[in-house]
Parts: sequence; structure tokens; C-alpha cells
Amino acid sequence: MRATLIYGAGDIRVENVPDPVVHEGTDAVVRVLRSCICGSDLWPYASKPAEEQGDRIGHEFLGVVEEVGRDVTGLRRGDVVVAPFVWADNTCDFCREGLHTSCRNGGFWGAGDVDGGQGEAVRVPLADGTLVKLGVGEDSALLPSLLTLSDVFPTGHHCAVTAGVNERTTVTVIGDGAVGLSAVLAAKRLGAEQIILMGRHEARTDLGREFGATDVVAERGEEGMERVRELTGGDGTHTVLECVGLEPALDTAFGVVRAGGTVSRVGAPQYPTVKMGFPHFLKNITLTGGVAPARAYIEELLPDVLEGRVHPGRVFDRTLPLEQAADGYRAMAEREALKVILQP
Amino acid sequence: MRATLIYGAGDIRVENVPDPVVHEGTDAVVRVLRSCICGSDLWPYASKPAEEQGDRIGHEFLGVVEEVGRDVTGLRRGDVVVAPFVWADNTCDFCREGLHTSCRNGGFWGAGDVDGGQGEAVRVPLADGTLVKLGVGEDSALLPSLLTLSDVFPTGHHCAVTAGVNERTTVTVIGDGAVGLSAVLAAKRLGAEQIILMGRHEARTDLGREFGATDVVAERGEEGMERVRELTGGDGTHTVLECVGLEPALDTAFGVVRAGGTVSRVGAPQYPTVKMGFPHFLKNITLTGGVAPARAYIEELLPDVLEGRVHPGRVFDRTLPLEQAADGYRAMAEREALKVILQP
Repeated sequence: MRATLIYGAGDIRVENVPDPVVHEGTDAVVRVLRSCICGSDLWPYASKPAEEQGDRIGHEFLGVVEEVGRDVTGLRRGDVVVAPFVWADNTCDFCREGLHTSCRNGGFWGAGDVDGGQGEAVRVPLADGTLVKLGVGEDSALLPSLLTLSDVFPTGHHCAVTAGVNERTTVTVIGDGAVGLSAVLAAKRLGAEQIILMGRHEARTDLGREFGATDVVAERGEEGMERVRELTGGDGTHTVLECVGLEPALDTAFGVVRAGGTVSRVGAPQYPTVKMGFPHFLKNITLTGGVAPARAYIEELLPDVLEGRVHPGRVFDRTLPLEQAADGYRAMAEREALKVILQP
Repeated sequence: MRATLIYGAGDIRVENVPDPVVHEGTDAVVRVLRSCICGSDLWPYASKPAEEQGDRIGHEFLGVVEEVGRDVTGLRRGDVVVAPFVWADNTCDFCREGLHTSCRNGGFWGAGDVDGGQGEAVRVPLADGTLVKLGVGEDSALLPSLLTLSDVFPTGHHCAVTAGVNERTTVTVIGDGAVGLSAVLAAKRLGAEQIILMGRHEARTDLGREFGATDVVAERGEEGMERVRELTGGDGTHTVLECVGLEPALDTAFGVVRAGGTVSRVGAPQYPTVKMGFPHFLKNITLTGGVAPARAYIEELLPDVLEGRVHPGRVFDRTLPLEQAADGYRAMAEREALKVILQP
């Protein structure tokens, strides 16, 4: 089959790889209908050292179950399913606590002998625990929104949930990428009435407004923080959703969070330390968030997608054939595309 | 009257200062029955540059209302009251949210023209909001435990509450000072079943066991972390209460917190940055805590003290006359005394 590999920074190739087959009784093989490129795929795309041997890449996909191992009880050939971006048993203590990203038996797509998500098919370990049936057909118009359940929408949701967003909290979202916009949508869904989106790409912030942002702040740095404080009577917001992962974004988050408030981060941190000393202590600021246990949220978010109450798939602004994956990476890295679907 | 002043590191003096009088209609004057020395007083005692003019010091006291301003409605001469370590109006939005340390009209003892707590009397601003009536007499045997409501017990409680301690969480407490021991007591009171106390001063950890610690780990650094992990099946604890304020203690906290867990800090941070990068993100670790809004907790904790269900005053192991304040500081700095009461 064909699958995407990364050979180093800027070097994405679609090549022939072995067809996936059931190895373990708990495996399933899924034929991919749609996969997509994640903002976090852009970190290795920007900086991975060149290597002779490529690594499989991609961790967001939905597809059709083609084959199941003898121990798989909850899935059948033909089921249309979505995979969260970490596979997990969904039964261990961490999974039962909703922290599937720390599953005692789970792991990441593309690691070891596990397939990446950007290919024609994927061997799914622990298929009963990992996959969620969507109850739609292969040609559903909802596939893009359902694909966001793999990562980007639950990631925005995790950010909002861990920050404690509810109908009484004001919210700042930092970052107008697909995760930031999903965080806006999640905050709105959780009842927040004031959602300030910090971002300066107008097409994206316009979508942010449609998703529920009440204010957009295009300024950055000290000027941007001042603007958020102005919008909140000088106090900042109860919750700040940091959806970038770079240190200036986190600095901004601390600059706009209200005393007693919470900063949640879901952008993979590209920094080793956090400036969080005595001034933050004096204000009782909390830093939370982390890699989102998407699996924990899919059942909760799915009905809203199926019934059309939310349209998280609007973050996709380009669909390319799998063979053009390299072009998709380039377009996202150059911010020409917000988020790209790859269709085998 | 007589009051304690700090002139610089190691230089504590008890001197004559003006008698406090009611300035504002919302003031009260309280004659101090007991005050005490805080671990946080030891930071300036260790490092404050020498100055010609001394600064008033002390922020934990209880006493008798001697005089009230014309706008004070909830207090009368003769009431025995405790003061939280930050004065506050108890009516602004932050106070209503339980964050009295960020009160829009409050402030710190010993700052500006406000008295410090280690003296014979104190002018209390916003007395109706700040002071809590204790309903005991001047000679109550409970005064030491009631005095802890000023700071150390609510600080331990804040640490446990913000960490999310309950009957289902395992707990590590880092630090066997008065705050750490109070955190043990608070965690036990909130229902925690496993409470691991990290500390190496046996007299203190023995009191920690009486307060509810189920395990004591005397080792430090990597060895201590390994010991906590052994005690928790390799995982660490759901909550870690960091009651020291130094960077190695925070490093230890991150080393023993379970994936998905929370570190809460109530030791005033003596560091500008926190090592909290990608590994912590991957484990969904939360850092919370801060300066404790003692005022928010006094009404909740008071009945347990009055009815003898908890004895937080056991953290005091020495009582000195106010005139010997300097000796109290020395004894605490040299870890000869755990926590010292000053009695005018």
C-alpha cells in the first residue's frame, strides 16, 4: 500500500510499504477514508535531521474496518470508525480515569512497528479500546467533522475542560490555528459567554467568530495583552487556552490570566521551562493541560457532530490526494492552508 | 506599644512604636493575645539588606477587639478574633470567589502604615471583612490551634484543596515544616487514605504521623523520589503538596506526581522559572496553588478546631515573650524550633 513517510525536515514522501495485516488477536485493519495533517506534524517537518530511512507519520484518521483479530468483539468488517491520535486499551486505570494518553498498554501511531495514519490502511492495535464506531456510511458528508474527533476537536475541548471553562468563566484563546479555533468552538459549546481570540490571520479569526469568539485581538506581545485587559475591565480572563506551544504564547497567556485563573496548554511545548515564579504564586495562577486524551471525549462530542450542532470540520480548508501529501505539508507550513485532509 | 521590627538579615528588634488608633471608620484596634513567626518571615530574616529604619513584621495573630470605627457593624469591644494573614473587605468579586488574597481593597500586614502582627496591638483595616470572631475567652486553651487559622492551617488546607485531595487521591507532602505538617492534617481531614510525608526531621515527621501521614520518606533527591514511587506501585501520587518553596522541592514534586496528577505549591517560590516542558505536558501534569486566601477557609475550619476534631496548634513547640522575638527567629532559622508563638 501507499503511505506517507518523513525523511527529514521538508522531506515528505509517499511510498510503497507493506500492507497491514492482523498480527495480534486484538488488532483490526482499517482502510483509511480520510486522514489529515496536524500542527504537531509540522515540528518534525521543520526540524527533523535528514535520515536514510524514512519514518511513518500521521496520527489522525477515520476509515472502514476491513479485518479484525479473533479477540475483537466490538467491531465488524464494514464499520466506519475514527481512531484517536493515541491507541489505548480503554480498560486500564488511566483509561478509566479518562487519561488514555497514559494508557498502560497503549502507544503512538507511527512508533515501532505500528503504522502511521497518513496511508491507505492502518493496523490498529487494541482495536476494541481504540476505535469508535461512527454509525455513518463511507460517503457521509460529515466525514471532515468526524475526522476532527481524532485529534483537533478533542484537543481544543481538553484545553477548555482542563481550564475549567463554563458559563461563568471568561476565556482567552491564544492561537488561530486549527487547535485554537477548535478551542473556541469547545469553549462556546461549554457555555462561555466572552471568548477573546488572539490571532492575526483574518480568514482564520473570521472562522473563529463563527465558532463563537466574541472578540478578536490581532495585536501581539504587550500590546495584545493590554488589549485583552481592556476588554476585561483590566483583570484578564478566568481561563486562557494556549494553543500554540511557543514560549511567547505562554508569556502572553500569563499576561492575560485573571488572578485565581487557569492557563491550559495543548500546544506541544517547544520550551523546557516556564516563567512561573513568585508573581504567579501571589496571583494563584494554575498551569494545566497537556496531550489530549481524545479517546476519552469522542463519545461525548460525537452526537453534537452527528446532529449538526457543531461543525468542527470547517477547520479543513484543503483536501488533497494522499499522493500529494508533501504539498499539503508545504501549504500548512507556509500558512497557505489552515488544515489539510489527505484522501487515499 | 512594643512591636517587632526587622532591620535586616538576622537583625530582629522589639521596640517602642506608636499605639494604634482607629483612623478609618472601618478600622478596629485589636490587642494581640498571641502572634507567631512564619516560615515566610525567615526569608527576609535570611537575606534582607541592612537598613537604618526597621520594618514592622509579622502577619499571624489573634486578639481582643479594643476599639472599633463608626462603620464597623459586626464586631464589638471584647470580641476575641483571629486575623487572616492578608486583610480584605470580604465583599468584592475576588473575595466572593474565595480569593481574598487578591481583594480589590485589601493588603498585607506591615506594609505602608499598616501594623505588623508581631506586636502588642494592631490597627486592623476593613475590620468587618478581615476579622473572624472565635467565640472563646481570652484564656482559652485552644488559642494556639485557633492562632493557626491565621495562616499555617489554611495554607496547608489551600494546598490540599487546590491539589484536589479527596478520599480517592493518594498524596505526597513535601516538607516537614509547620506548613507541610498542616498540609498532612488537611489532607487527612479531606479523606485521603495514603499520605506520604517527605521529611527527615524525626520529631517533625513523628508529628506528621500523628496528623495522618501513612508513610514517611526521609531520603531526598532521586533516592527519595524512587522511594515514593516504590510506595505507589511505580506511579507516584495523584496529588503532591509542595510546602517548601525551593526548586529542589519542586523538582521532587514533579518526580513523584502520577500522570494526570497535580502539584500544588504553597511555599513562597524562591525561583523564577519552573521546569515544566514536554515531559510534563505528555503526562498532563498540573501546577497550581499559591498564596492561601486564609480568610476564605476560616469559617469552614473553625468548628473542627473548636470541637477538638483537629489540633493544628501542635505545630507550635515553643512560646516566648514578645520581647524575645529575636530569639524565636533564631531558633526557627536554626531549625531548633518548629514554630514559635510570641506572647505580648
